[in-house]
Amino acid sequence: MANNLLEGKRGIIFGALDENSIAWKVAEKAMEQGAKFVLTNAPIAMRFGEIDKLGEKTGATIIPADATSVSDLENLFEKSMEILGGKLDFVLHSIGMSVNVRKGKHYTEYDYNHLTKGWDVSAVSFHKVMSVAKKMDAVNEWGSIVALSYIAAQRTFPGYNDMADNKSYLESIARSFGYYYGTDKNVRVNTISQSPTPTTAGSGVKGFTEFLNFAEEMSPLGNATAAECADYTIMMFSDFTKKVTMQNLFHDGGFATTGISEKVMKNFIEGRYTK
Amino acid sequence: MANNLLEGKRGIIFGALDENSIAWKVAEKAMEQGAKFVLTNAPIAMRFGEIDKLGEKTGATIIPADATSVSDLENLFEKSMEILGGKLDFVLHSIGMSVNVRKGKHYTEYDYNHLTKGWDVSAVSFHKVMSVAKKMDAVNEWGSIVALSYIAAQRTFPGYNDMADNKSYLESIARSFGYYYGTDKNVRVNTISQSPTPTTAGSGVKGFTEFLNFAEEMSPLGNATAAECADYTIMMFSDFTKKVTMQNLFHDGGFATTGISEKVMKNFIEGRYTK
Amino acid sequence: MANNLLEGKRGIIFGALDENSIAWKVAEKAMEQGAKFVLTNAPIAMRFGEIDKLGEKTGATIIPADATSVSDLENLFEKSMEILGGKLDFVLHSIGMSVNVRKGKHYTEYDYNHLTKGWDVSAVSFHKVMSVAKKMDAVNEWGSIVALSYIAAQRTFPGYNDMADNKSYLESIARSFGYYYGTDKNVRVNTISQSPTPTTAGSGVKGFTEFLNFAEEMSPLGNATAAECADYTIMMFSDFTKKVTMQNLFHDGGFATTGISEKVMKNFIEGRYTK
Amino acid sequence: MANNLLEGKRGIIFGALDENSIAWKVAEKAMEQGAKFVLTNAPIAMRFGEIDKLGEKTGATIIPADATSVSDLENLFEKSMEILGGKLDFVLHSIGMSVNVRKGKHYTEYDYNHLTKGWDVSAVSFHKVMSVAKKMDAVNEWGSIVALSYIAAQRTFPGYNDMADNKSYLESIARSFGYYYGTDKNVRVNTISQSPTPTTAGSGVKGFTEFLNFAEEMSPLGNATAAECADYTIMMFSDFTKKVTMQNLFHDGGFATTGISEKVMKNFIEGRYTK
Repeated sequence: MANNLLEGKRGIIFGALDENSIAWKVAEKAMEQGAKFVLTNAPIAMRFGEIDKLGEKTGATIIPADATSVSDLENLFEKSMEILGGKLDFVLHSIGMSVNVRKGKHYTEYDYNHLTKGWDVSAVSFHKVMSVAKKMDAVNEWGSIVALSYIAAQRTFPGYNDMADNKSYLESIARSFGYYYGTDKNVRVNTISQSPTPTTAGSGVKGFTEFLNFAEEMSPLGNATAAECADYTIMMFSDFTKKVTMQNLFHDGGFATTGISEKVMKNFIEGRYTK
Repeated sequence: MANNLLEGKRGIIFGALDENSIAWKVAEKAMEQGAKFVLTNAPIAMRFGEIDKLGEKTGATIIPADATSVSDLENLFEKSMEILGGKLDFVLHSIGMSVNVRKGKHYTEYDYNHLTKGWDVSAVSFHKVMSVAKKMDAVNEWGSIVALSYIAAQRTFPGYNDMADNKSYLESIARSFGYYYGTDKNVRVNTISQSPTPTTAGSGVKGFTEFLNFAEEMSPLGNATAAECADYTIMMFSDFTKKVTMQNLFHDGGFATTGISEKVMKNFIEGRYTK
Repeated sequence: MANNLLEGKRGIIFGALDENSIAWKVAEKAMEQGAKFVLTNAPIAMRFGEIDKLGEKTGATIIPADATSVSDLENLFEKSMEILGGKLDFVLHSIGMSVNVRKGKHYTEYDYNHLTKGWDVSAVSFHKVMSVAKKMDAVNEWGSIVALSYIAAQRTFPGYNDMADNKSYLESIARSFGYYYGTDKNVRVNTISQSPTPTTAGSGVKGFTEFLNFAEEMSPLGNATAAECADYTIMMFSDFTKKVTMQNLFHDGGFATTGISEKVMKNFIEGRYTK
Repeated sequence: MANNLLEGKRGIIFGALDENSIAWKVAEKAMEQGAKFVLTNAPIAMRFGEIDKLGEKTGATIIPADATSVSDLENLFEKSMEILGGKLDFVLHSIGMSVNVRKGKHYTEYDYNHLTKGWDVSAVSFHKVMSVAKKMDAVNEWGSIVALSYIAAQRTFPGYNDMADNKSYLESIARSFGYYYGTDKNVRVNTISQSPTPTTAGSGVKGFTEFLNFAEEMSPLGNATAAECADYTIMMFSDFTKKVTMQNLFHDGGFATTGISEKVMKNFIEGRYTK
């Protein structure tokens, strides 16, 4: 769909690892819609991913940055404005990682250094990105900043663990920072709460495929794909959503407001009685 | 537990049909805690139920009233104050019925006369009860009014149908009327969103037992029973909760904030793969 | 903005009265984006409004329909499909009216015939529209149905009164019907919770201008206008939001998640101390 | 009110500084209701406060503990069980502090070491308390754990700043840990979202009195006091609320669900037009 929704707009996209990444799809679609942007990821993530391919495909410059480092972020915003030729109109924050989950720690028996690291990467980085952007006056009026979130911020999904708490903190930053950024500069800040998505990062988690099936059968429209999430993100970057701010937007085929679906109930009953 | 929580308090309890009713348990526990009260139900419900037994057991007078009839309600409040010797301190609204559900109509193909009847009985009756009480100045300052609700007001549970919409309306009345009743008379108004409960009314619904099992396994503390709901209601009538108003309070063993439990996931998976 | 977002799409727009109406703006923008549609309103509303002008401007046929009448709706959907040459892709429900508010009745002392009338017009009509559409199989897969709502469905605004309860019911219908429409036909159903908007209908209400100022100063981005609401609605009709369903979406400049703004606090303090 | 609600129960109360503290009131009322408990606070807070007086008054032992130190907490739980003669039934977490707020930093220009310190004290400490308790199996079945929160977790109140984000994280911990603690041990975990309260800690904040007035006039029942919050907390510790878990409970006179009150509107208007 080439609708020129981002014609003339400039942005930064965090978190494209490989073609399964939501951020990857956002980059492809942003290009289709006329945007120019810079791609960025943590130096370590870039070694494992294929961001160079995406850079070639979209003509985007890649600037490595550790999103927990204020000086890396300052360099990123400065260079981006130089390269793109002006202030920015959109930023995508698609960053998340829990050391405790990776190490298989049980939620009730956490290592607090790991907790702090995961919180810094997954949540505080969003504050740092906006703090740097605002101090440098790097975003145009009516610019749009989006971070990806997950419904575990509202309800418990065993195994998601401290990522749930990080997403709650992330969504709170969207409201807190969104208040000031809106009041001072008319910049809007929102989170999109996306269906579980089979990205390379997510797929490694034990039981993920089963959970994906559960979410698929629970959602009246089925799970939202990474490509569909990119469409929704483009829409949130466009001028069609200028007065939406400080919101968490469920993009999940109806999962969030479905108590139970007939399909899930059927499988649940059969599972109970075939044991 | 005899803690004199309602010592000296007077009330009206709507909706006790038989000993499975939540309202029945509230009456028993209100008596234990020192309250005096009047029992009421619709004339037609009284024919099928055993409210007389409850009256004997608790020493309460029974005054039939159709909760959709303003004149019946006026009579009820007037007589109740006479019998109990003063203004009231608490009211329980435990009333709900969907003609469409009873007749097995599919949600998308409703009869609108049935819809209106169910809405009037299940939701508008709550407005009528409070409107009559407030006009007659029948409730003491810091009195407490509670209606029973269900999480279908927030999320869809197929089969609950227009009762979901009625509960949404009921909870909205609690906020709207609660604002005025609080501002003018310091009377508080809340709804308790209770676990699915095997009352005589509920048990008839097809698939109810299976759903009860689902909710039991989804809730970290298991389903809340009718007796536990009565305890919670007593607490909401007591002076320990004087500043809680215009709230919908989940009393459900953690169901509302559990995205999925490990037990439900296990049954779901087994159901899927044994087919 | 001509982005061909609705190229080839067909729809029905309820509720355009005059050029201040949100529905009027939606019609203008839907035309810009390539849609074909039918306009409709209640026969009585058409006498007072200027819908003919809009018909001329957008080339849309006007079919009067009382949205509380199932037979009127059946006629509307049948004729619309004939005129537009196929099944529909979008429907806008922008209908609301409280007889009690019009007659100046206090919320706690309502006339229940008025209550029922307002509920039928403002909320049940949304069920009727979708029930007729679904029975006639009048909406294409991935079609989008939107109704306009207001934050009074979540919090009390004195004076909004039973419209608050109606909007709660309306939003519940969006979830309940959205579950079935999504599961069976991949049709999505959402409500947009819009800033207070100076439409001709709204402006008559006493204290409305003052409240508009309050909302303006409370919202970090200021109130959303009717034209901006139309943009957001167009986006919800487009293919960029295909997996969003059963949601209530705040379009209000951040009002819903702002506890208090510095501007409102300042005026509040000065009002308190200059008295 | 001596209702023996906590007869035979043992607990730990964190955060009593002086007689304005909510935790202080909880201690007094817990004693009245028959509980035995240990008092604790950070060593530094104890120097400035008057916790010794409370210890004398309630007969409680005082054990200093830095709630961010796992070893301090282990010592606290071990000693408490020795002193009280068995496992615990309730814990109150009333701890919060933002270094950034204290140092007058603007939310958008934070020091991230300060941010981490405040998050650790205000939110992570709650995880640590429960992690230690669960590992030591220090809480009886159906025990109740409560932390105090604030509505800034849901909506932005300028000046509350990173405490808002900390409270969001705290409430998320209540859900996440509550899921596991409930499933494994039938222990319930909730947060109480209290009105702004003129404690010694809170009163120092600039503009606090004015904000207290705003909240008072916004709340249909007025602000909830520290003593009333203590009543509500006692109720959440009692056996009357056994199936409530993973909830955030508003105890605020109706503030959370009031969009605007007539009193606030009046002052707002007068402030606007007398300028």
